[in-house]
Amino acid sequence: MTPDFRLDRTLSASELEDVLRQVGSERYHIRHPFHRLMVEGRLTRGQMQAWALNRYCYQAAIPRKDAIILSRIEDRSLRLVWRERILDHDGDGASPGGIERWMRLATGLGLDAAIVASQRLALPATRFSVGAYLTFVEKRTLLEAIASSLTEMFSPQVIGERVAAILQRYPYIDEDTLGYFTPRLTQAPRDVDVALAHVREHARSIETQQLVVDALIAKCEILWTMLDALHFSYVEPGHVPPGAFVPEAAS
Amino acid sequence: MTPDFRLDRTLSASELEDVLRQVGSERYHIRHPFHRLMVEGRLTRGQMQAWALNRYCYQAAIPRKDAIILSRIEDRSLRLVWRERILDHDGDGASPGGIERWMRLATGLGLDAAIVASQRLALPATRFSVGAYLTFVEKRTLLEAIASSLTEMFSPQVIGERVAAILQRYPYIDEDTLGYFTPRLTQAPRDVDVALAHVREHARSIETQQLVVDALIAKCEILWTMLDALHFSYVEPGHVPPGAFVPEAAS
Repeated sequence: MTPDFRLDRTLSASELEDVLRQVGSERYHIRHPFHRLMVEGRLTRGQMQAWALNRYCYQAAIPRKDAIILSRIEDRSLRLVWRERILDHDGDGASPGGIERWMRLATGLGLDAAIVASQRLALPATRFSVGAYLTFVEKRTLLEAIASSLTEMFSPQVIGERVAAILQRYPYIDEDTLGYFTPRLTQAPRDVDVALAHVREHARSIETQQLVVDALIAKCEILWTMLDALHFSYVEPGHVPPGAFVPEAAS
Repeated sequence: MTPDFRLDRTLSASELEDVLRQVGSERYHIRHPFHRLMVEGRLTRGQMQAWALNRYCYQAAIPRKDAIILSRIEDRSLRLVWRERILDHDGDGASPGGIERWMRLATGLGLDAAIVASQRLALPATRFSVGAYLTFVEKRTLLEAIASSLTEMFSPQVIGERVAAILQRYPYIDEDTLGYFTPRLTQAPRDVDVALAHVREHARSIETQQLVVDALIAKCEILWTMLDALHFSYVEPGHVPPGAFVPEAAS
C-alpha cells in the first residue's frame, strides 16, 4: 500500500478493516489543529460559538443524508437498522434527537436558536462540505455511501477527548450543555457494526475495496475541510468571509 | 435594501442590475486577500502553482456546468447561444479551448500536466466548491442557474488587473502562458449580455429578483471560498491538508 492508500492486492476482510483504521489514524479530524486548540482549552467563547454554529449545519443534514442512503437500500432488513440513524438525529417528537441536542450546545454557548437554525451565518465552506456529503451518498454506489459513514469508527475517541477537555477547560460549559455527545457513545458503535459488516461482506475485490477506502478518505476530507474553514476564519484574525458569523468583540 | 441584500420592494430591470453590480463590488473575489497578494507580486512560484492547479478543477468543470444548464433550457434559441460557452471551454478538437489554455498556464508554471489533469492534488475545499456550483445549477431554478453565471459581469476587471500585474511582477511568466485570459475579455461580455437579458426579462417580481440576487451571492461565495482555501493552505505556513499539493521547497 502506498502513502495515499492505493491498494496493490485484494485484502482479507480484517486486513481491509486495518487499512480503514489506518486511514482514520492519519486523516480523521482528531488530528486537525482546530481540534487540538479546542482540547487544549485555547479557544475563545466566540470561537467555540463559531464551531457550534457551523457544525449545526452538518448535524442538521445527517437525517437527510441517511434518508438518501435509505432510499437506495433494497434489503428491507438493512433499511430497518439504517432507519434508526434518522430517529437518533431527528428524535421522535417527544424525546429530543441529535439536532435538538446540538442546538442546546449552541444556545448554551450564548447563540440565538433562530439564527443557528437558519444557517445563514454559517461559512460557505461549511455548506459546500455538507453539500459534498449529500452529493456523495446520492451519486456514488451504495457501498461507497455506506462506507463514508465509517468515520464513526473513530468518533468515540474524538468525543471522549473533546468532552473531558471542554468540561475541564471551559468553565462556562456544563455537562448538560454537552448532552449531544453522551448518546453518541453508544449509537456510533452500533452504527459502525452495521456499516462495517456490510462493507466486509460486499467489498471482496481490489476494486470495491479501493472504493471503500476512498469513500472513507473522502468523508475525512469533508470533516477536515470544515475545521480548515473554521481555523482560517476564526483563529487567524481578519479572515471571516463576507456575510458570515462574527463573534462579539467581548467574547 | 439591507446590508445582506434583502430586497424590500420589486425593482425595475435597471435597478436590479444596479443591485447585482453592488453585490459584485462587495462580494466578488477581486477583493479577496489572496488576489491582492497576487497582484502585488507577493506570491511565490509555489503559491502560483497551487493557484493554477486548484483553479484548473474549476475550469475543467465549466463545460459540464453549462451542459447541465443547456439540458434545462426549453427555448431553442437560448440553447443555441448558451452552447457557445461549451465550445469556448472545450474547444473544437483543433483550436484549443479554455481548459487547454488553462493547462498551458499550469505547465508554464512548471506543473506536470498529468498531475494537474488528474485533479488528485487539489484541495478538497476546491472540489467541494466546484461541486456546489454543479449542484446549484442542477437543483435550483433555471433562472437562478443562469443568474449564477453573472460573476462574468466583473471578470474583465479582475482579468485586466491580474494579467497586467503578473506580467509586470512575475518575470518567469510570459504573455503566451497567460493565453487563457485574452479570449475571455471578449467572451465574457457576450455571455453577460445573454444572461443579463434573460434575467431582466424573467425576474420581474420581488421573489424572483431575490432569487437572482441570492444566486449571484452564492456564486461569489464559491469563488471566494476557493481563494480562502488557497490562502489558508499556502499563505499561512503548515496548513496544507493531508494529501494535497505541496510546493517544492525551492519554489
